[in-house]
Amino acid sequence: MGENDESEIIEHHDDEEMEKMRTPRNQSFLESVASSEKDGYSSTQSSHRLLAYSDALISIIATVMILPVAHTKFQDNEELKQSIQALLTTKVAVYLMTFLIVTVAWAAHIRLFQVIERIDDTLALLNLACMMLITFLPYTFSLMATFPTNNLGILLFCACVMVIGLVQALIVLYGFSRPFLLSDQIQMSENQAYYKRRILEVIMRVPIMCLFASVFSIIFIQVSYIILAIVIFLPYISQCLKWIRSKAIGGQVEDSPDSVPFYTYHPSEPLSKERVEAFSDGVYAIVATLLILDICEDNMPDPSVVKKKFDNNLIAALQEYGPEYLAYFGSFVTVGLLWFVHHSLFLHVTKATRLMGLFNTFSLAFVGGLPLAYQLTQEFPKGSRNELEAVQISCVIIFFAGLFQLAMWVTALFTERETLHPYVRYGGREHAFMLAKLSLYPCVALGTFVFTCVLSRFSTSIFHMMEIGVPFAFLVLKLLVRVALVLLRWLFCPARNDLDSVPVEEEDSQLPINDIVT
Amino acid sequence: MGENDESEIIEHHDDEEMEKMRTPRNQSFLESVASSEKDGYSSTQSSHRLLAYSDALISIIATVMILPVAHTKFQDNEELKQSIQALLTTKVAVYLMTFLIVTVAWAAHIRLFQVIERIDDTLALLNLACMMLITFLPYTFSLMATFPTNNLGILLFCACVMVIGLVQALIVLYGFSRPFLLSDQIQMSENQAYYKRRILEVIMRVPIMCLFASVFSIIFIQVSYIILAIVIFLPYISQCLKWIRSKAIGGQVEDSPDSVPFYTYHPSEPLSKERVEAFSDGVYAIVATLLILDICEDNMPDPSVVKKKFDNNLIAALQEYGPEYLAYFGSFVTVGLLWFVHHSLFLHVTKATRLMGLFNTFSLAFVGGLPLAYQLTQEFPKGSRNELEAVQISCVIIFFAGLFQLAMWVTALFTERETLHPYVRYGGREHAFMLAKLSLYPCVALGTFVFTCVLSRFSTSIFHMMEIGVPFAFLVLKLLVRVALVLLRWLFCPARNDLDSVPVEEEDSQLPINDIVT
Repeated sequence: MGENDESEIIEHHDDEEMEKMRTPRNQSFLESVASSEKDGYSSTQSSHRLLAYSDALISIIATVMILPVAHTKFQDNEELKQSIQALLTTKVAVYLMTFLIVTVAWAAHIRLFQVIERIDDTLALLNLACMMLITFLPYTFSLMATFPTNNLGILLFCACVMVIGLVQALIVLYGFSRPFLLSDQIQMSENQAYYKRRILEVIMRVPIMCLFASVFSIIFIQVSYIILAIVIFLPYISQCLKWIRSKAIGGQVEDSPDSVPFYTYHPSEPLSKERVEAFSDGVYAIVATLLILDICEDNMPDPSVVKKKFDNNLIAALQEYGPEYLAYFGSFVTVGLLWFVHHSLFLHVTKATRLMGLFNTFSLAFVGGLPLAYQLTQEFPKGSRNELEAVQISCVIIFFAGLFQLAMWVTALFTERETLHPYVRYGGREHAFMLAKLSLYPCVALGTFVFTCVLSRFSTSIFHMMEIGVPFAFLVLKLLVRVALVLLRWLFCPARNDLDSVPVEEEDSQLPINDIVT
Repeated sequence: MGENDESEIIEHHDDEEMEKMRTPRNQSFLESVASSEKDGYSSTQSSHRLLAYSDALISIIATVMILPVAHTKFQDNEELKQSIQALLTTKVAVYLMTFLIVTVAWAAHIRLFQVIERIDDTLALLNLACMMLITFLPYTFSLMATFPTNNLGILLFCACVMVIGLVQALIVLYGFSRPFLLSDQIQMSENQAYYKRRILEVIMRVPIMCLFASVFSIIFIQVSYIILAIVIFLPYISQCLKWIRSKAIGGQVEDSPDSVPFYTYHPSEPLSKERVEAFSDGVYAIVATLLILDICEDNMPDPSVVKKKFDNNLIAALQEYGPEYLAYFGSFVTVGLLWFVHHSLFLHVTKATRLMGLFNTFSLAFVGGLPLAYQLTQEFPKGSRNELEAVQISCVIIFFAGLFQLAMWVTALFTERETLHPYVRYGGREHAFMLAKLSLYPCVALGTFVFTCVLSRFSTSIFHMMEIGVPFAFLVLKLLVRVALVLLRWLFCPARNDLDSVPVEEEDSQLPINDIVT
């Protein structure tokens, strides 16, 4: 049976490869058709690397605003709760707003380059201009948070968004003026003019709302903040409204049978899986290394201090920074393992939907807070109330980061035929193993949280035990799942352990339990 | 003609796709052969995303050490030269050493995963452990630079390298114990044991040298620094020695006909082009955003200061930071355009050799210095001697970053049949255009340098003119090249302008000049 299953996996991968191959073939056909329209010099290029670079830039920018949060100095004598509350009002809010708005811009970028599949030099340069403006957005958010009553921040933000909208409109117009750059679907279609109008409408929607917001910011600044909040959740609001309308009128009203599938804002609208992966990789990589950026710069003892205070004993001087190293390794391991879980999940995801993308964003936003939480954990004296709270905040962050990963999988299970590989679907061969992988971190975080409440004196020790234990848990997880399944089978259905029922179940390969028994 | 050429490009891309496809097919065949050795649960995975994540981590770590350099505060009253000299001795040296040693580790990582083409969960976790140790290397370098006479830094470094070597050896042993994870070439081969021994030998070479270095560090610390320098240039030294030996004895002596092509350390040894691109993307992305990381954190005026000093006029308060914004945009544009040139070059590169990888590393190391240079440019009062020197340093950095990109192309031209797409080979259709793209930045930087020497009073203005002008130069570059070629043709070979010679030349498509005329 093992043999058959393995070849099935491989066939699945082969299919993907075939899928990849098919596109360039169409491309080559269409391009040779369209080539009469091109001048001899324009070298059309695959957009793959441009998109990878854009993803890297956007993921760095999305996580940038955690730095001011992490660098806030906490007073040791006052309660952590107070400083956390002061933080929550500004810096954490700025971080989350930035993260959300940058991912909105990123989602728009995905959709834009699902329409324009090939690029040339001009498009590459226009895209770089667009990226530069996006990297400036976090700063405008900081301005808004620091001076909430001054309208300069909101005006700058709106100006940026409007210019980004104009550059994107320029990219669309340029793309439609050279149809061989467009996606095959639109190239094939006869009403390109309709597509062009529709895409421009969607792109210009956000800049126009920002225009209103900037006008309102001069008169009545609260209104413009509300408009900005609407911008972030616009896709979901518009989808809700459409759904309510369709329920009220009765019967789904499709506005056009020829509507562009990647401009619907529907929750199950496909996002490019490759780009979701690239963006997540970028966020995980920058978050994993955030602490080493600080450590390399700040945790280097001054030679003169070492001479005076520690009598040239470098090891003693470095021991002062011990907790920082521990924080670094702890956060690297946790971020690395969360990446590993994400990687395992996306290995079996065949299509990423909008809703999965949203949960992924939430998960990543929590991951971004991890280094901060770990730094907090090491900052307070042993046994203090602050230390306990810092450990508990870390647990909460890990819990939610893991929980939203699990939510992604659950969302995918609802439309499993389209989004998941057969093996991890409900009843598939690796279903139980995947569930174990995804629920390990939320369970461990919850357990640690409960333990620290009960045994508050040993909170840090419990937390360190967790840190050390989890990587090993991942190594032996396969074994643990097998043992657990055997136990479950033995407890609940010992009657089904007879031999003649096994081959029947093996054929439809529905229950993961069979694999263990056979 | 345009039509034929375009389809040729596409065929070329198709070939690449076919190449990609062929591998998984072999895989499926071999895996089904090997599947009897596997247990039913081990899900073999493509290593693509693991490698992308590793590239992202390594590229961030490689550029980390520029931060302490950039954050050095310069005294305005003393000469820049002095502070630059103080910098050069420690921080810049640490940055360059880190960059080189991290790229050596990265090259080793490439080679390792050219042998092991497929991964499973255990390998993914082992790789994460390896990454964590690599991210710690920059810190050990800082220790060495700050305390050059203390052997703790070198001991820590050697310990890290030895543990990395052990983890890599573990990865190799694990890979060879499950042959379906190995590359097809080794899977097919009959003497796997030979490969295993040879690869382990190469991997353990560096850790063993580090063991010697750590022993020497206790007795005689200078020797261990020399050993470390040898480690970085080991591949080139060993290749040189081999070359000298072969010249001395006469006749190339191949030690084995079956030698592994990716463990030769030969300058024309192929590196994975995809991974060179991913690593470069990571470096360009983090360098482009380095300044915004600082700006978001440090350049936010304090509300109380704004109230007192600027009478609540936020715009006046922000004008103080004007130069910083300018520095950010300047460095983003330059890094973005250098990425654009790199992207254009690698679009036509079919295979990256070791020597090209070395030039790429040098180019990236200079790119990493750009944000620092731009920050310097804005830091000094107008017309001061320091300002002139800062502008000139920026020019020198841009010049070398561009020059090494050009060097990559020149290196590729020497073995153009293997490494370049026909269009950019000597005499190819886009040869002149590529030359113009690659030489634009070195030429402009050189020109700006000369201008600032002559008109030292206007150095900053000249520099800003350059910044604004270059993006537009890239936009109209195609036109400029065309005009230049027509002029060249008209000046040097007006006789060849007759019509009957054109069709003959068109057939072999050797001279780029023809395209403009026809």
